[in-house]
Amino acid sequence: MLPNQFKPIDLKLLWTLVVRVRNRAPLVHNITNFVVMNNTANALLAVGASPAMIHSVDEVEDFVAISQALVINIGTLDSVWIAACKLAAIKAINTGIPWILDPVGTGATPYRQTAANSLAQLKPTVIRGNGSEILSVAQQAGEGRGVDSLHSSETALNAAQHLANLTKGIVAITGAVDYVTDGTQVAEIHNGHPLMTRVTGLGCSATAVIGAFLAIEPDALTATVAALTFFSVAGELAVERSPGPGTLQVALLDTLYTLDEETFIRQAQVH
Amino acid sequence: MLPNQFKPIDLKLLWTLVVRVRNRAPLVHNITNFVVMNNTANALLAVGASPAMIHSVDEVEDFVAISQALVINIGTLDSVWIAACKLAAIKAINTGIPWILDPVGTGATPYRQTAANSLAQLKPTVIRGNGSEILSVAQQAGEGRGVDSLHSSETALNAAQHLANLTKGIVAITGAVDYVTDGTQVAEIHNGHPLMTRVTGLGCSATAVIGAFLAIEPDALTATVAALTFFSVAGELAVERSPGPGTLQVALLDTLYTLDEETFIRQAQVH
Amino acid sequence: MLPNQFKPIDLKLLWTLVVRVRNRAPLVHNITNFVVMNNTANALLAVGASPAMIHSVDEVEDFVAISQALVINIGTLDSVWIAACKLAAIKAINTGIPWILDPVGTGATPYRQTAANSLAQLKPTVIRGNGSEILSVAQQAGEGRGVDSLHSSETALNAAQHLANLTKGIVAITGAVDYVTDGTQVAEIHNGHPLMTRVTGLGCSATAVIGAFLAIEPDALTATVAALTFFSVAGELAVERSPGPGTLQVALLDTLYTLDEETFIRQAQVH
Repeated sequence: MLPNQFKPIDLKLLWTLVVRVRNRAPLVHNITNFVVMNNTANALLAVGASPAMIHSVDEVEDFVAISQALVINIGTLDSVWIAACKLAAIKAINTGIPWILDPVGTGATPYRQTAANSLAQLKPTVIRGNGSEILSVAQQAGEGRGVDSLHSSETALNAAQHLANLTKGIVAITGAVDYVTDGTQVAEIHNGHPLMTRVTGLGCSATAVIGAFLAIEPDALTATVAALTFFSVAGELAVERSPGPGTLQVALLDTLYTLDEETFIRQAQVH
Repeated sequence: MLPNQFKPIDLKLLWTLVVRVRNRAPLVHNITNFVVMNNTANALLAVGASPAMIHSVDEVEDFVAISQALVINIGTLDSVWIAACKLAAIKAINTGIPWILDPVGTGATPYRQTAANSLAQLKPTVIRGNGSEILSVAQQAGEGRGVDSLHSSETALNAAQHLANLTKGIVAITGAVDYVTDGTQVAEIHNGHPLMTRVTGLGCSATAVIGAFLAIEPDALTATVAALTFFSVAGELAVERSPGPGTLQVALLDTLYTLDEETFIRQAQVH
Repeated sequence: MLPNQFKPIDLKLLWTLVVRVRNRAPLVHNITNFVVMNNTANALLAVGASPAMIHSVDEVEDFVAISQALVINIGTLDSVWIAACKLAAIKAINTGIPWILDPVGTGATPYRQTAANSLAQLKPTVIRGNGSEILSVAQQAGEGRGVDSLHSSETALNAAQHLANLTKGIVAITGAVDYVTDGTQVAEIHNGHPLMTRVTGLGCSATAVIGAFLAIEPDALTATVAALTFFSVAGELAVERSPGPGTLQVALLDTLYTLDEETFIRQAQVH
């Protein structure tokens, strides 16, 4: 049913990107929401990147200019922050660094929808959202359920491919199964665990980790697949040691930091 | 000495509310402070609710309209946020959804006092604070000690009853003993543990969890008692596994997620 | 090579400051960044202080007036927050309470450099940063690497002494070795662990903990040495129980709360 499978999935190749992030410690500029700033910064540090959270319109352009990737997440939006997001995105485009958009909760309110759409029109290197968010950005739906997803990631796949063609970029839908597409090829990641939805902001952290991988790999499709596979494998391994979502948040950071190639390759289920 | 005890305390009834939150996953709109946003979102997820943190004046009314409860917490206040709090509260009233006010640190500064009072005048469904905060809102005191309480919850009980009569709502004082009153009846909760005061924002999390219970139970007194009992029992059980406050923050989330009826009923001390 | 060593290092004296913080629970006013607010508040609670995060220009002066120390951290800066930082710093000076500046990421952008410099010109009681930040504030460098340090703390020591003489205050450089100087004397702290750099905001937490010690000890050099030694010892002990940076964040808070005199004196390496 999938139009074109992403082939070949070379897990050893994906792992080389993990190693590259750890070795190069790319500087990742984040304009993200208040809820997840700490976790996002910690996730980036755990994978080996160097995070910075900078949002003032008075400095975002200067900071993009010294960064290797930009992450824009509209979670706790207001007019001041939208202006900063736009300035930063335009600077990223003009500077030629990759950037990723996380359209958190778009569709929940007209304001949020407008903000997400105006950023999507700037053609991010990658857009990552849950099924509802991707459907909303692709203007096929918008029921408004906040940051949880009412749509399975499967349902949103057609919208994702459509959107990827519009933006000439990569679109990633995360959920029970993650899908990553460039509009033609589709990769599926069957890792992760439902308990991850009981920790706030893991989608936002996944977005930031994709940002770190984009910083060290020009092929955005491969970078996104590698980042999401790495993150999901770490998540499901962390769940094994977690009696509940509190421990999971902590164990995930430990696992992002310690995960080794052998375990990654044994655990990863991508096709 | 207590004018009217809250009777009968049916722990099995309180537990049915826990189950209802877990089954219905109510959408809880939070306008809360920067310090606790992550923990509050995680506490709501751990009890089974669906949290959203939305503060822009450009979307708070639209988001209240799709939510089942509203939580307003003035911890890290400024003029932009006060405007958003008021707009959201008025929308909640007009929409008919329950809302809860956490007047963090009111009395510490005139600005904070004014903000808390103007929100209290909108007659929240529930107000929850420590003894000093409730005394301050009830205009009987205002020593200014930030977010810690200088008053025992007992001292503030008369003020709480007065305030509940003014707002025709519920007032909850949390401390060594928690008190919940509708102005006439008073319930006492003798759970919790002093180590909980060494973790920032557990009062804020308790407020948000009350919000989740208000979303699924129209009797606000019962909802508040159920939420605070559940939260305090989870807290004291989490302390048993915690060498210090760092672990407690994590273990509390795990316990909110895993607590079962048998343990709850054995542990709860409400009358 | 060091011009004047800080002598004598009396570890029992340093420990009396820890006890004083625990006993007096000083109220510490923080204007800090969104990334670390939760951790900073929890670190202050774990050492026994009473934290408050207050940033509105409408109340910072009133809150400084009731606080025992002020912490200013420019991590997630914008024009509204800079105004609040300046108002609060001036109020601290006029009130006579100690204040500490954490010039996060200064040198990364002109905006940040200007903000840090204008606050440094107000002569903070203490400035704490990594090597790059201290060099930047001392106007000897400014490569712009965000919040990570490209300079070892040793390299920045001369700049720190110069800066301390300019501000007539204390300057602390944290890194593999921590240096604390009043411009003449230099104390070195050889505690801590590299894994601490993989947790976001531990430098910010160290700054806040110094704030708590300044609140209870008028000799700012001794207070800073005591706070940093205590924090670094707690950090390296926490690392022993941490498989990765997630656990470390939690274990550090536990250790700040539980650390006892005997362990502190056995572990501390200051000279």
